[in-house]
Amino acid sequence: MSSLPSTSREIRLVSRPNGWPSDENFELAAAPVRAPGDDEVLVRNDYMSVEPYMRGRMNDGKSYVPPFQIGQPLSGAAIGEVIASNAPSHPVGTLVNSDFGWREYATGPAKAFRALPPGFAHPSVFLGALGVPGFTAYVGLHDIGGLKKDDVVFISSAAGAVGSIAGQLAKQAGARVIGSAGGEEKVRYLIEKLGFDTAFDYKAGNILQSLQAAAPNGIDLYFDNVGGEQLEAALTCFNPFGRAVECGMISQYNEQSPGPRNLAFIVGKRLTVRGFIIIDHQARYPDFIRDVAPLVQAGKIVFAESFADGIENAPQAFIDMLRGGKYTGKVVVRLGNAAQ
Amino acid sequence: MSSLPSTSREIRLVSRPNGWPSDENFELAAAPVRAPGDDEVLVRNDYMSVEPYMRGRMNDGKSYVPPFQIGQPLSGAAIGEVIASNAPSHPVGTLVNSDFGWREYATGPAKAFRALPPGFAHPSVFLGALGVPGFTAYVGLHDIGGLKKDDVVFISSAAGAVGSIAGQLAKQAGARVIGSAGGEEKVRYLIEKLGFDTAFDYKAGNILQSLQAAAPNGIDLYFDNVGGEQLEAALTCFNPFGRAVECGMISQYNEQSPGPRNLAFIVGKRLTVRGFIIIDHQARYPDFIRDVAPLVQAGKIVFAESFADGIENAPQAFIDMLRGGKYTGKVVVRLGNAAQ
Repeated sequence: MSSLPSTSREIRLVSRPNGWPSDENFELAAAPVRAPGDDEVLVRNDYMSVEPYMRGRMNDGKSYVPPFQIGQPLSGAAIGEVIASNAPSHPVGTLVNSDFGWREYATGPAKAFRALPPGFAHPSVFLGALGVPGFTAYVGLHDIGGLKKDDVVFISSAAGAVGSIAGQLAKQAGARVIGSAGGEEKVRYLIEKLGFDTAFDYKAGNILQSLQAAAPNGIDLYFDNVGGEQLEAALTCFNPFGRAVECGMISQYNEQSPGPRNLAFIVGKRLTVRGFIIIDHQARYPDFIRDVAPLVQAGKIVFAESFADGIENAPQAFIDMLRGGKYTGKVVVRLGNAAQ
Repeated sequence: MSSLPSTSREIRLVSRPNGWPSDENFELAAAPVRAPGDDEVLVRNDYMSVEPYMRGRMNDGKSYVPPFQIGQPLSGAAIGEVIASNAPSHPVGTLVNSDFGWREYATGPAKAFRALPPGFAHPSVFLGALGVPGFTAYVGLHDIGGLKKDDVVFISSAAGAVGSIAGQLAKQAGARVIGSAGGEEKVRYLIEKLGFDTAFDYKAGNILQSLQAAAPNGIDLYFDNVGGEQLEAALTCFNPFGRAVECGMISQYNEQSPGPRNLAFIVGKRLTVRGFIIIDHQARYPDFIRDVAPLVQAGKIVFAESFADGIENAPQAFIDMLRGGKYTGKVVVRLGNAAQ
């Protein structure tokens, strides 16, 4: 064990963001690496994820998933390799995912690390199309939204990690799919690379008019990643019995802006607006892998990744991901061997 | 048939309200009474209903239930007596309900008039506790809200026709029930007469603080009749997996005010916000009568009615009901024999 590292750099939360997070809310610190005890492993993280839901955990509050603690490292999805093991189930060299992101090395019970199946060229796929974003898209469309093959589906933040997979899965199911994204380049990407039926730039022109033009017969399912003005447009365009899958309201996480003025459509059109958090749906993970892994292996799901390098750059990657515009698709921070 | 009336006074929509309705949107007119043809009956209406949903039908728009037509009589629930019949199923003297409200007499196919069971002292109960308001409360709590006996239930407009029954049905099911209403008198009524666990005056003090004080452990089900600020307070007070039954948003029917600023709780708390319209749920009517009629006959459901008299006063009764403050409970307009 003499070649093992003695310290692991990690990102800690030093203060809770008030509105948009900034550098000052985070600290890069070094923690000693602990050798694995019985049934434990030591893992070198090679990839870690930054995701919108993490912003919610930076707030204090009892009603959300447990908040991140001040002075403690953040956590989140990471992919790594076992470099020391006292667990027969996880020999050295095993590729694993865990929730021990935001740090270079993690020691913990073997059962907290899921061994990943072989046969995928890029392990980071388990942070994306076959990770939390893909699983979120799958559960949102099917379990929350009750996707039907003749639905017209509108997806906001459609070039993002969750939205891009949600759109492709909805297309695979036979639905007509409309996406919104910021900028002409992303709009072209949705139509030309991901196979969306149509898409529009939410930053150009009136959002409601753009959606009405894209969906002249209305929409049936709205996969909402942003809230605010796009939710308002969706409410206006919903057909009766429409369903809004509330996956995220990124437009409202950092500022308490007024909500849509047309919520009364929820009554008149008999809409269902339903929120979810993916951690409640772990029991569906095997179904997700069964249904979606073959599509990924066959190249039928296109998944964009953008990379930042080094644990020290993880907070900025998180902030840039939240603000949008810099990255397309899943934002992954490369660590360890992957960063070299 | 010589004693039959020759004309029936009725209320017609002459223009669509822009915001709050006013006298000018309505016209009192006289129409000839038509003798019943084969399998038809002529009914003298004795009671007619004014209800919040009618405001929605005064708007034009394809997505709601069909709008009322300009120049035509309005419609809605009415209770009356068959005074001429060519249908063996509905002899003269049969007590019936129908959707031919807003007029003194109605001729139509017998199947459009439901014969009412005997044994109820006051026929107007079929406009209230056993009519659309009671049925709406029943479907909202059970089918839309998934009421459970250990729920904490918050009901806005709780002294209103739907809210007052919803609160009592929730109590009968074992839930803890909190109501809001306008004014101290209605608050006392909810607690002392209807058996609510607690209640508050939404016009006095801060709504959120009042709800937090009434529900220190949060709420699980919100039966929403008003939208706006009370919905915002409910979102803040919801426990995880809370359900909002969107029965009405009376605060938003007449003005497009901004929605709640805290819709992001829908995601974080995994809430379900679901609208409904009672006409979609006719198949549940027999279950409703089976479950609720015995409670009404046993005097276990208290139901307040307020009366206006005469078809000519129906528009003002409708307007006063919408604005609140004048009436408690169900607003019924007495016509025909009942008005004498």
